[in-house]
Amino acid sequence: MNCIIFLNIFAAIWALAIAGSHFPATKGEVWPKPQHQVKTNTVLTFDHRRFQIKVVGVSCSLLSSVASRYSHVFARQSQLALEHYEHARSHKSGGRLAELHIDLTAPCEDYPHYGMDESYHLTIAEVSTLKSGSIWGILRGLQTVLHSFYFSDDYRRILVNATEIYDYPRYSHRGLLLDTSRHYISLHNILLTLDAMEMNKMNVFHWHIVDDDSFPYQSKRFPELSEHGAYYPTMVYSKADIVLVLKYARERGIRVIPEFDVPGHTVSWGASHPELVFTCPDQWYGTTTSGVLNPILNSTYELLGDLIKEVQDLFPDKYLHVGGDEVNTKCWEKAPTIQAYLKEHNMTITELFPIFVDRLFQLLGSRSQPIVWEAIFEDVSSLPASTPVHVWKREPIKGNERYDDHGKHTVNKVLEAGNKVILSAPWYLDYLDKTWEYYYNGTDPHAMVNDKSLAENILGGEACLWGERVDDRNIISRAWPRASATAEILWSSPPFDVPSEYHKSVNSNRMEEHTCRMIRHDIGAQPPNGPGFCVVNPNHL
Amino acid sequence: MNCIIFLNIFAAIWALAIAGSHFPATKGEVWPKPQHQVKTNTVLTFDHRRFQIKVVGVSCSLLSSVASRYSHVFARQSQLALEHYEHARSHKSGGRLAELHIDLTAPCEDYPHYGMDESYHLTIAEVSTLKSGSIWGILRGLQTVLHSFYFSDDYRRILVNATEIYDYPRYSHRGLLLDTSRHYISLHNILLTLDAMEMNKMNVFHWHIVDDDSFPYQSKRFPELSEHGAYYPTMVYSKADIVLVLKYARERGIRVIPEFDVPGHTVSWGASHPELVFTCPDQWYGTTTSGVLNPILNSTYELLGDLIKEVQDLFPDKYLHVGGDEVNTKCWEKAPTIQAYLKEHNMTITELFPIFVDRLFQLLGSRSQPIVWEAIFEDVSSLPASTPVHVWKREPIKGNERYDDHGKHTVNKVLEAGNKVILSAPWYLDYLDKTWEYYYNGTDPHAMVNDKSLAENILGGEACLWGERVDDRNIISRAWPRASATAEILWSSPPFDVPSEYHKSVNSNRMEEHTCRMIRHDIGAQPPNGPGFCVVNPNHL
Repeated sequence: MNCIIFLNIFAAIWALAIAGSHFPATKGEVWPKPQHQVKTNTVLTFDHRRFQIKVVGVSCSLLSSVASRYSHVFARQSQLALEHYEHARSHKSGGRLAELHIDLTAPCEDYPHYGMDESYHLTIAEVSTLKSGSIWGILRGLQTVLHSFYFSDDYRRILVNATEIYDYPRYSHRGLLLDTSRHYISLHNILLTLDAMEMNKMNVFHWHIVDDDSFPYQSKRFPELSEHGAYYPTMVYSKADIVLVLKYARERGIRVIPEFDVPGHTVSWGASHPELVFTCPDQWYGTTTSGVLNPILNSTYELLGDLIKEVQDLFPDKYLHVGGDEVNTKCWEKAPTIQAYLKEHNMTITELFPIFVDRLFQLLGSRSQPIVWEAIFEDVSSLPASTPVHVWKREPIKGNERYDDHGKHTVNKVLEAGNKVILSAPWYLDYLDKTWEYYYNGTDPHAMVNDKSLAENILGGEACLWGERVDDRNIISRAWPRASATAEILWSSPPFDVPSEYHKSVNSNRMEEHTCRMIRHDIGAQPPNGPGFCVVNPNHL
Repeated sequence: MNCIIFLNIFAAIWALAIAGSHFPATKGEVWPKPQHQVKTNTVLTFDHRRFQIKVVGVSCSLLSSVASRYSHVFARQSQLALEHYEHARSHKSGGRLAELHIDLTAPCEDYPHYGMDESYHLTIAEVSTLKSGSIWGILRGLQTVLHSFYFSDDYRRILVNATEIYDYPRYSHRGLLLDTSRHYISLHNILLTLDAMEMNKMNVFHWHIVDDDSFPYQSKRFPELSEHGAYYPTMVYSKADIVLVLKYARERGIRVIPEFDVPGHTVSWGASHPELVFTCPDQWYGTTTSGVLNPILNSTYELLGDLIKEVQDLFPDKYLHVGGDEVNTKCWEKAPTIQAYLKEHNMTITELFPIFVDRLFQLLGSRSQPIVWEAIFEDVSSLPASTPVHVWKREPIKGNERYDDHGKHTVNKVLEAGNKVILSAPWYLDYLDKTWEYYYNGTDPHAMVNDKSLAENILGGEACLWGERVDDRNIISRAWPRASATAEILWSSPPFDVPSEYHKSVNSNRMEEHTCRMIRHDIGAQPPNGPGFCVVNPNHL
């Protein structure tokens, strides 16, 4: 009988370990996982009141502002510890993290860019050092320091293990697409998204700023576009808003690539310029409307040219996304003016799109490198080989069958044609019932490539948060932590060729910690792993 | 050529109507739809500064507080109009809503209850009257008044159409289940949920308060249950918290039915009382743990009895949900004490569960009417015929096949056995990719019943928001507006026998307005219908 009671108690203790979070959070694990890390068992305490960041190498105004911001971010973490609000106690035994030396070994660059150096070398000890040849590497390393902090079991102190990390990203282009046309997204949530991207070492904010449904970009040259095309007068992005987004992003090492998707997806352009846009029932769904710019009018290109110049003046990035997706050529076909034009020039309808793209690329000139959705690659044989193609279709059609290959078929086709690839097919966040593991499993871009000599032409990838079912109320919890899966795939390239349960068992506890960490820093991420909890602020008793 | 330009312009104008929201919001349509409404084209303006609520019939302290609260709710709506902040203008022509007479014709009841009268008769005119034989009907009618308000097209004024409504619910039990065990939900979000329920005329808050994962109910008699079983010391509901929830719910005509699910789903009970709980790997998923109370110990019933008394003293509702779901009898079977007991009493394992249920029901006595999940109905033949059975499985197994019948098979089985039904099978909100139409279509409980003479034994239904993937970050946007579909089915019983596209086309615009209305009243509902927008506050320019 005693024996049985003992067994019962044992069962209950085991249950205690299991009840609560199904995946108890790790302590001080970095997301995305660093390339090389040696973590010791030496535990240091961290208290921001007895801690200093020192810039010991090259400095610049960006570095000063970054160091100052991270002092505050670290302090905020430290202030959460219960001990922070107690009266001074006897000095704790054991080491503490006293200083962090930032050693930047080369001058700051002005703007983040494709191919920027994001590598860093971090040693966490009583006197820690963070060394990099680039301000962008320093930014990534500071985020790693933040991730290394964790609460003691009693939430009284912030701890960190002595650690050495050498880290760098696998892909240079690691992005998140936000769609601000299907629903307007407030400036507040765009900035919060940039915070979240920084916490995930993502570095490209792909701003799908306008589309069929609304035109929130406020143009100086063409104010009528948003006056008539925005949902409501407040639902616009002014020049000042965009400048703020660009500044906020730059301070986090994040590039901003705007997308003006043409010639399709342009119903909202037609609100102020009906003469430039054909609108038709959507070719796939029928119930909605899609718009296509008129490709035979010079005024179309005049507007585009001036708009592009304005956008080029505003956004510093070399890349500009021009869309080119889902062009409803049937909508052109129905127009008598187009028919007359085709007849006059002895052309077929399929020749119109390439003409449009050629003229569009001429307008971009040498200031911008266009990025295009895969439809342009499919339909425009004259596409320059240097152009990055954004691959998004996960289900190519072979014969009469659709099959889900995460975009592999198209990736190889694009690479073999000599083009570069940005991959999004595995990371469409609008599969609402999918959890982070779905986006994590089986999606390493490199592993998709048949001819490995072409693999370096994969620039990276982006998680895409299309806006149909997303607005200010749910955008943050929809994106995070699911986009964190994409972030880790693109930074760390975890092993590809493993059973699908592998990543769940290896990474669920890390994901639990990472999600709670984001929540503590105001990113309202949704639960990643079923039942569990996150003590956002242990002081709220 | 002119002709063609004309056609283009026409196309663009059509597009203008379509771009923007795919489903433009209606103006002043009530959700759930009233049973009988005659709406005129006479438009009145509403300005709370020139408006009064008068209690002209019976009064009571609850009615006074309700009237005062709605004065504020109406004022808040009126303050959003752009004109509100302008200097006084010349008096507008046309009528205005000057007074609302509340005519309660019978004394107030203390608490909402099953079968309460929620009918009301509302006439909206310059002097409006709201008449009901019940305080609960008055509450429903006031919400209807709120829904009838809408913005003028220029957002300058609040308007309302002269209208006559006679309204009452189809089912008396219209609930929402919230699970506060898988993730802890803050008091703030519970109160916000009650606000949302009131806006949808839902009247049962089914509080699935504890489960395997955590025990946040703070018991006076057994404080150790939450001390050891809650996720964290702050993640509990104190007596004061519960009293507040009950008061807040009562003021909105909402019953609170707590659920203490026994004997299964009790791992968290074992954290403080390991001797009373067997824990085993979850019978379906294996990876998680489920707990079952020990049915052969007197101490199990002693704890249950005292706990039930405490719960009965706290919660005024006649009904108490005792769960009984997914009892892992294999977990009992493995225990040597159980084996010895069965042998001694010459019993089989299947006889244990009925014994547990019988003793449990004795503990409830006459103070509580138990509600049980369908498993008890399946496994306990001695279940009293009066007991309401909560039907949740949408896929019964026939032979080797599962098929989705929205619970119809079980509903009829339960009714034919003489039991009452609470239906949840069609309304599990944890299908994350499903939109409101999914929950709306083909789910009228009455239509499921084969023998219509038994249909009155359907008490109603509940939308269920289980907590595995829901926490404070996303609970509101997950629940709303999808639970609004259930609310309308149960209040209005829209036609059942129609093609599935029917409800989408008839109700999408109403749903768009209703969602925006909830957002304006702090319920952060997610977008219901694809692209669109909600001007939360037209003053934010």
